Amino acid sequence: MLPPALAITRRIRSTPWSSRIEDFGVKAYTVYNHMLLPTQIRGVEEDYHHLRSAVQVWDVACERQAELRGPDAARLAQLLTVRDLRSLRAGRCAYAPMVDDAGRMINDPVALKLADDHWWFSVADSDVVLWAGGLARGMGLDVQVCEPEVNPLAVQGPKAETVMATVFGEAVRAIKFFGFERLDFRGRSWVVARSGWSAQGGFEIYVDDDELAAVLYDELMAAGAAFDIGPGCPNLIERIEAGLFTYGTDVTREHTALEASLDRYLALDAPIDAIGLDALRSQRAAGISRRLVGLMIDGDRVPHNRNGWDVEHGDERVGSVTSAVWSPRLSTNVALGMLRIDHTSVGAEVTVLAPDGERRATVVEVPFPGSSQR
Amino acid sequence: MLPPALAITRRIRSTPWSSRIEDFGVKAYTVYNHMLLPTQIRGVEEDYHHLRSAVQVWDVACERQAELRGPDAARLAQLLTVRDLRSLRAGRCAYAPMVDDAGRMINDPVALKLADDHWWFSVADSDVVLWAGGLARGMGLDVQVCEPEVNPLAVQGPKAETVMATVFGEAVRAIKFFGFERLDFRGRSWVVARSGWSAQGGFEIYVDDDELAAVLYDELMAAGAAFDIGPGCPNLIERIEAGLFTYGTDVTREHTALEASLDRYLALDAPIDAIGLDALRSQRAAGISRRLVGLMIDGDRVPHNRNGWDVEHGDERVGSVTSAVWSPRLSTNVALGMLRIDHTSVGAEVTVLAPDGERRATVVEVPFPGSSQR
Repeated sequence: MLPPALAITRRIRSTPWSSRIEDFGVKAYTVYNHMLLPTQIRGVEEDYHHLRSAVQVWDVACERQAELRGPDAARLAQLLTVRDLRSLRAGRCAYAPMVDDAGRMINDPVALKLADDHWWFSVADSDVVLWAGGLARGMGLDVQVCEPEVNPLAVQGPKAETVMATVFGEAVRAIKFFGFERLDFRGRSWVVARSGWSAQGGFEIYVDDDELAAVLYDELMAAGAAFDIGPGCPNLIERIEAGLFTYGTDVTREHTALEASLDRYLALDAPIDAIGLDALRSQRAAGISRRLVGLMIDGDRVPHNRNGWDVEHGDERVGSVTSAVWSPRLSTNVALGMLRIDHTSVGAEVTVLAPDGERRATVVEVPFPGSSQR
Repeated sequence: MLPPALAITRRIRSTPWSSRIEDFGVKAYTVYNHMLLPTQIRGVEEDYHHLRSAVQVWDVACERQAELRGPDAARLAQLLTVRDLRSLRAGRCAYAPMVDDAGRMINDPVALKLADDHWWFSVADSDVVLWAGGLARGMGLDVQVCEPEVNPLAVQGPKAETVMATVFGEAVRAIKFFGFERLDFRGRSWVVARSGWSAQGGFEIYVDDDELAAVLYDELMAAGAAFDIGPGCPNLIERIEAGLFTYGTDVTREHTALEASLDRYLALDAPIDAIGLDALRSQRAAGISRRLVGLMIDGDRVPHNRNGWDVEHGDERVGSVTSAVWSPRLSTNVALGMLRIDHTSVGAEVTVLAPDGERRATVVEVPFPGSSQR
């Protein structure tokens, strides 16, 4: 029996690059912010090795921008995230967890400060533009909230800087991690950030012209030909090794930012007005009951993790494995899971009820060893 | 070359019935509100004939509920929709278009009034829970906004009432169109509405228990065995014939409720406080520039419409065909399209630039003839 196909209609928006990656033979898609996102180009393991050794162009148009523009933009931006934005300069990005009044995760975007009165939140898979728009409308703020027609394209991998310098000039080399510049491409000025959803280093280009988007893609491919450039996408193995969770998979609206192990991004002691800060302060004081951790799962290659797997200790259920995959580099299964707090110390051993049987697993530090090549 | 597969992970939520319809051999899925929605069980045409002649059980768990509960629930409900809710009684549903301050569509849910202080909006594909939550938070309303774990299951087709009466008792026969009752199933009390996304008549059951969800599915299948019951899903042919647009496909955030041809649902002259009402009043006064219409497209079977097709008149672009499919019953291609207002009269002829060549098309009334069997 064939697996069900994905019915691609206008509602599942194609990107300026869909036809190119389909011509290449993309193997699997997911849907992210109502848009196509490739998940496998040649196959997860082949993509993994290629990403770590060469350079890839990623169609991440689905990273939509919630744009805030106007006199109250900075106030709304800070309200939206428990990250302290006070010292963020224009031209800088910040990973900016967004929570509700109970501290539960609404999204985990990257904020880009274009100017004091102009912000983008490059969002994970939920309609932040509606959350921000509802807040702005309800509070009567003087700010326009919209989703501009901006499609990010990422260049990731050890050869990314070389390829980008060929296309955008030497200026890209001076861009610091999570910094961005406006760089020229064929007469357009595009935001180019040193960022991206891998630990291999690279850039994201915020493309606002569909015709030039295709030209850019082809130029990047030509510039990288000597470095085995090819299409890529966020890679399951690489992102678990890097300890990057997926909102909606590992962390959902049910989990607070503390449970998501985002402590170091939370300005819990800052005198800022941010939604959810009080709740997170209370949770920190009271202690949390579960937390996202990295896991190594014993045994051979785990099957596909579709719905999460229960985790037990003795006869008690103590959590679930939310993402898991075989790492060919580490020769073990790497995983993320949400575990009861008394089982989250590094070295703690638990039992994973995988579909093919019980397996022993151990809580480990993330990132996994050798994850980043930066 | 195989078409790309859909990568199903926890973020693309499975439903209480996914395993059953996959065992049956569901051919295609889409993703809707971050959840799996089947689009073809046996095939679009086979599903179409079966829906019109027999009875189907539809996994529409992706119709998520944005729940409003509390003293300000009714006020927020009215603010959210340009439909006049003042005379809606508890136990009644209302199709309730939701727009922003510019009158542009945010969603086109069905509102269910459970009580004055308790509402559900059964939503199309956008995170209404964030929009409503942002508004409530911003305005300081005394209302809880959440997405409860409620999974709708629909029973649609001419034999739906008979099957439902077998499972839920004769009381279902008394439920009027867009009315609902709380009916007992194995000790649980579930909202059962006479509603659903087809013109063939039927019911939607709002199921809040995953274990019983499977029992219900099996009981419905058993009760309908004599009527050739089987799994089904919203059907492309049937819904175009019925003139039902899909939010995100035919109508998007770019279109206003007037452009979506929703005039008869809009309380433009009512003294209510609803977001977007002023904008829509102004647009009515000024006249709109485009509108969603039904179309018959000449020639043989049209190919799959993935991204929309341009529509021309003479040498001018005058709109686009957003959905199109061959109707085996009408022996023509039925379609919906957004056309410039001067080409929206019934009988107007335009040229459609389909991927396999130009075709003549004619604006027609929707629903198409014989669409409804009610």
